[in-house]
Amino acid sequence: ATLPFIWPRCLLPLFLGLFQGALLLFFAFFVTYDEPSAQAEDTNLVANQVYSTFPFFQDIQVMLVVGLGLLLTFLPHYGLSALTHNFLLLNFSMQWALVLQGLIHHFRHGHVHLDLHKLLISEFAAVTVLISVGAILGRTSPCQLLAMATCEVPVYLASEWVIVNCLGVLDVGGTITIHIFSCYFGLGVSKALFWAGQKPLHPKETPTPGSDLMSLVGMLILWVFWPSFVAVLCQPGDAQHRAILNTLLAMSASAVTTVVASSLLERDGKLSPGHLQNGSLAGGVAIGAVADMAMPPVAALALGSLSAVACVLGFRFLSPLLGRKLALQDQCGIHNLHGLPGILGAAASAVAILVASQDTSGSHFSQLSPAGGNASEGVGEQQGDGGVSRQALCQAAGLVVAIGVSLVAGLLTGAVLRLPCLAQPPEQLCFDDSLYFKFQEQAERLGPGSTPEERALDLKEQV
Amino acid sequence: ATLPFIWPRCLLPLFLGLFQGALLLFFAFFVTYDEPSAQAEDTNLVANQVYSTFPFFQDIQVMLVVGLGLLLTFLPHYGLSALTHNFLLLNFSMQWALVLQGLIHHFRHGHVHLDLHKLLISEFAAVTVLISVGAILGRTSPCQLLAMATCEVPVYLASEWVIVNCLGVLDVGGTITIHIFSCYFGLGVSKALFWAGQKPLHPKETPTPGSDLMSLVGMLILWVFWPSFVAVLCQPGDAQHRAILNTLLAMSASAVTTVVASSLLERDGKLSPGHLQNGSLAGGVAIGAVADMAMPPVAALALGSLSAVACVLGFRFLSPLLGRKLALQDQCGIHNLHGLPGILGAAASAVAILVASQDTSGSHFSQLSPAGGNASEGVGEQQGDGGVSRQALCQAAGLVVAIGVSLVAGLLTGAVLRLPCLAQPPEQLCFDDSLYFKFQEQAERLGPGSTPEERALDLKEQV
Amino acid sequence: ATLPFIWPRCLLPLFLGLFQGALLLFFAFFVTYDEPSAQAEDTNLVANQVYSTFPFFQDIQVMLVVGLGLLLTFLPHYGLSALTHNFLLLNFSMQWALVLQGLIHHFRHGHVHLDLHKLLISEFAAVTVLISVGAILGRTSPCQLLAMATCEVPVYLASEWVIVNCLGVLDVGGTITIHIFSCYFGLGVSKALFWAGQKPLHPKETPTPGSDLMSLVGMLILWVFWPSFVAVLCQPGDAQHRAILNTLLAMSASAVTTVVASSLLERDGKLSPGHLQNGSLAGGVAIGAVADMAMPPVAALALGSLSAVACVLGFRFLSPLLGRKLALQDQCGIHNLHGLPGILGAAASAVAILVASQDTSGSHFSQLSPAGGNASEGVGEQQGDGGVSRQALCQAAGLVVAIGVSLVAGLLTGAVLRLPCLAQPPEQLCFDDSLYFKFQEQAERLGPGSTPEERALDLKEQV
Repeated sequence: ATLPFIWPRCLLPLFLGLFQGALLLFFAFFVTYDEPSAQAEDTNLVANQVYSTFPFFQDIQVMLVVGLGLLLTFLPHYGLSALTHNFLLLNFSMQWALVLQGLIHHFRHGHVHLDLHKLLISEFAAVTVLISVGAILGRTSPCQLLAMATCEVPVYLASEWVIVNCLGVLDVGGTITIHIFSCYFGLGVSKALFWAGQKPLHPKETPTPGSDLMSLVGMLILWVFWPSFVAVLCQPGDAQHRAILNTLLAMSASAVTTVVASSLLERDGKLSPGHLQNGSLAGGVAIGAVADMAMPPVAALALGSLSAVACVLGFRFLSPLLGRKLALQDQCGIHNLHGLPGILGAAASAVAILVASQDTSGSHFSQLSPAGGNASEGVGEQQGDGGVSRQALCQAAGLVVAIGVSLVAGLLTGAVLRLPCLAQPPEQLCFDDSLYFKFQEQAERLGPGSTPEERALDLKEQV
Repeated sequence: ATLPFIWPRCLLPLFLGLFQGALLLFFAFFVTYDEPSAQAEDTNLVANQVYSTFPFFQDIQVMLVVGLGLLLTFLPHYGLSALTHNFLLLNFSMQWALVLQGLIHHFRHGHVHLDLHKLLISEFAAVTVLISVGAILGRTSPCQLLAMATCEVPVYLASEWVIVNCLGVLDVGGTITIHIFSCYFGLGVSKALFWAGQKPLHPKETPTPGSDLMSLVGMLILWVFWPSFVAVLCQPGDAQHRAILNTLLAMSASAVTTVVASSLLERDGKLSPGHLQNGSLAGGVAIGAVADMAMPPVAALALGSLSAVACVLGFRFLSPLLGRKLALQDQCGIHNLHGLPGILGAAASAVAILVASQDTSGSHFSQLSPAGGNASEGVGEQQGDGGVSRQALCQAAGLVVAIGVSLVAGLLTGAVLRLPCLAQPPEQLCFDDSLYFKFQEQAERLGPGSTPEERALDLKEQV
Repeated sequence: ATLPFIWPRCLLPLFLGLFQGALLLFFAFFVTYDEPSAQAEDTNLVANQVYSTFPFFQDIQVMLVVGLGLLLTFLPHYGLSALTHNFLLLNFSMQWALVLQGLIHHFRHGHVHLDLHKLLISEFAAVTVLISVGAILGRTSPCQLLAMATCEVPVYLASEWVIVNCLGVLDVGGTITIHIFSCYFGLGVSKALFWAGQKPLHPKETPTPGSDLMSLVGMLILWVFWPSFVAVLCQPGDAQHRAILNTLLAMSASAVTTVVASSLLERDGKLSPGHLQNGSLAGGVAIGAVADMAMPPVAALALGSLSAVACVLGFRFLSPLLGRKLALQDQCGIHNLHGLPGILGAAASAVAILVASQDTSGSHFSQLSPAGGNASEGVGEQQGDGGVSRQALCQAAGLVVAIGVSLVAGLLTGAVLRLPCLAQPPEQLCFDDSLYFKFQEQAERLGPGSTPEERALDLKEQV
């Protein structure tokens, strides 16, 4: 029952193969490691950097590869594809971001010096792709996803540079630069790609208890390791400690509040697995922009609760509304998990800056931006009240830029994905692993060498 | 087929919502972070604390959220509920323990200063709830479980304070304070709740190979990270190193011995999945009280083997006996995993103290309690032989206090759980996710917008 | 339908029980912990060692217990057995390696001082057993696997000593000493055990989408934590940093290249789950021998891509060929995952040494072996060109020794496994959990105490 996909089928290995070749060439000519450090003190320094960054890096890898992959397996017949596409896109986007970063930022110094920190930044670029995919999961081919990644990574790097370095937005956990950006990019792609109208529910789209369970395990893995994602780029010491604690508080509040909200909104007070899988993570999305700021712990709890409520309300009311009014497809509900909590988080960061400036004298404002990881150096000098309200405006400007750039770029990318050569699967074949995976079939299992005894055993099995 | 649960259905969101509100108020008025450290040396100190505690903390989170959650999915139709209730209870109990700790310990200092260590202590309080739930899993509503958590956390905090601070019991890994306490608390609850008599086997109670596999994965995750649980509160250096090694040895011995014991006890020499899921962890329960003591490695191996034997024998003989004689329900067999190995561990700690005092002169006794984490300051001064035997008696007294307090409190709590408003599910609807989760059904999938083509596809699926 | 396995059934607990007893005796008389360090500086040193080694150790435990275990669950009716046998063998082999190491290396010093590093070396010995099992998985009894482990561990320790200490081979990630050795050992066992001829395909041998999904999750866990496996024994500082980066690059290239290769080789451009489960890890196998060398990053990428291609080609062409021509069974395709990439890695290490000596003057050759972890002390002194080419020859010699020793030892071990008392299961009962696990059956669930209501519920379930 497969359609003749001859040309597109070849496109995937062709494109990936060419890309790997180009990557090898780029690395061969431009990329080296740092010079080995000759002195014992430097060796200690490098060792300390490894021990302080590597565990966070591993945590984030677990989140993206295992946690996010499993979260996407809620489609019961599409688990292998979801895991594999997620894994492939992560690797492709990371390599692509490495190349682009190398070309853009470091070209003038001749050689690119690779280290764990640069890999981490590339991983963040890949995260945006993995989030955006959620809007169009199941109805798109791997070729389309790779084309999307190819477009999204450079736009992300540019927008991140504008938001953090030009506007000086404080966003240590990527609420604005990663979550908001990737959400609206994905929605833009979805809108442009499925322009014609809302798709009817596909029979294979409905989760089963088994697939919901796997997805829930994925959520739990993401939930556990989220503090590492938020805190990895913080300044070691107080700021990092605070970022970890704030994230833990926000996510704990989200988990409990999701149960409250879902139970109030569903019939008979039952819980919806979809709400749990997403709402429990909403606090982590929202806390990113304020995690390292010197705000009281209650703010983290309140932000976590609010985002969970927003996420569940989004699933219950906003998603169906957007589907009816705008014919917008959002397969995984990324607008509810990344969009709404992201906007809340961005607003919270502006409020936190304004409140902190009223509580304390200007000399304490430096506590607000101890992270330094993402902040431009200019921010430290804006110490007066004017500086404070300017910083709050910057956060709002960052939000607007992120939404605007991502929506436009997403719509353009979605138009590109309509190219016939990218092999969008026909509606009947969507949400099905067998379109992309070759399974050994019953018939194949019995080769010419099989004995009658074997055939009998096999028949017994089938009955 | 659902019964009219109108009032209890509203109780869950009502109770949780009120609790979240109270939590917010408490945090708003009483909880702050530590003052940021102004000096570079302090920053280094905080950073080191983060790097030395945070990886252990993450490991423990993985154990509780993913490992323990999956371990409970052995009930084939109850996987979503087990994972979700475990997750909800962890978060609720942690928040509740934070509030109680704040009120009790720190109220006199005005503000409560939150840090990672306090979160860790709250997490330990939550562990007791998660263990106790094992006795009544599947036949209880979330409201009942939350009520149980509400009662158990304060009793745990009080009993832990008495055992560790008043009696000076050495118990770095929580064998007595956590495992013994939660086991007998859970059994008390079960006895009071199901007073009428032993329930017949429910048809949905029997594990399937698929659910046993998921549960086994949960056990393996717990097994891997257990050393972090035991060693997190040890003094850095030798004591922590020794605690890690002892735990690794004990759990390795448990794993092998469980296979021996299960294979000898089951018909045809087959293995029982239930034995494996529990026996392999028994060594970790028992080693907690002695993990950081200066005992020879062989003691850890022997303790691990013995606890595994006790656990498997408990499943084979003691549990059915308790069921028949005392009409005691113990759904997950927590008495075999936490009760029997816990008692062994407590006895081992008394023996280790006595033996160590004979081997070495009094001046070496300080090796016995280098942990300091849990030990009262008075212990260090009891250096003579009298001090040693007094310390051994303390361990025994701690065991007795833990069992006594938890049993009485558990029975009282179980009586509270019989309140009709807590909505204990009727026997026919037990062990079934569909009582608590709303699944999309076949009928719903075909909305008014679905085309005949879709209906045809759907029908094809169903055939 | 089970055959009368009376004697062999008893053999498993008998053998394991005796082994545990012997282990206890050995530990009781010969093994102690290091003396506690009296001074504060020493305490800091120990603490630092714990913090720098323990996270790597935990990562490796997750890989072996959870990741490798799940990877082997691709056999749909054999998941519990695969997970359990993997877990049992890991523990048994580790204990056995601890005993042997104690006897061989440290006997002359009177007592064996146990520390985390010695446990890590024992874990590496256990890895070889877990890999070799892949060749004969599903058609062998636990007794056979334990017998194999008993033979393999001492041979591994001897061959590792010869390769690293006598030949001075550089192999920080175990490409030659672990992967090559265990692969050819396993193939030798398989050949000797299934001498009679190629087995026909068993009906339960074919993976289902569900079991492929679990196996894919296992692969992803292995993929994420592989850098820890390669880098754990590196010298802290630059060498370890480089080993981590090289492994990350190689595995990322493997992941993408596997998709390319699989998609080109399978019909319709579909992907084969088996290719993905193995090819994505091939880069990690190959990079082990060169991970800490001062080579350019492009080499790691190229090696990762090449190994993935070799692995997928092996599955597509070499495995069927070996099956037809040599009647060689290789259930999990370990020759494609560990053999071919291992040989590539060994060759790459020789090339890297030769190239590095041409690029740089002799005084920089020391950069090639900064790891020191595995390298003999003599290597550091071989600084001239003669030393370089001699080192390259050593790598080749190490490869030859590893293959030769493992093949011969494997064939002999395989002959031992044919002993009737080891209870090889008959072909009809292979690949089935019910041969080794006791599941509760429908009939058992309804005990004499069950009410008619219960029976009715149960019947309803069955329909």
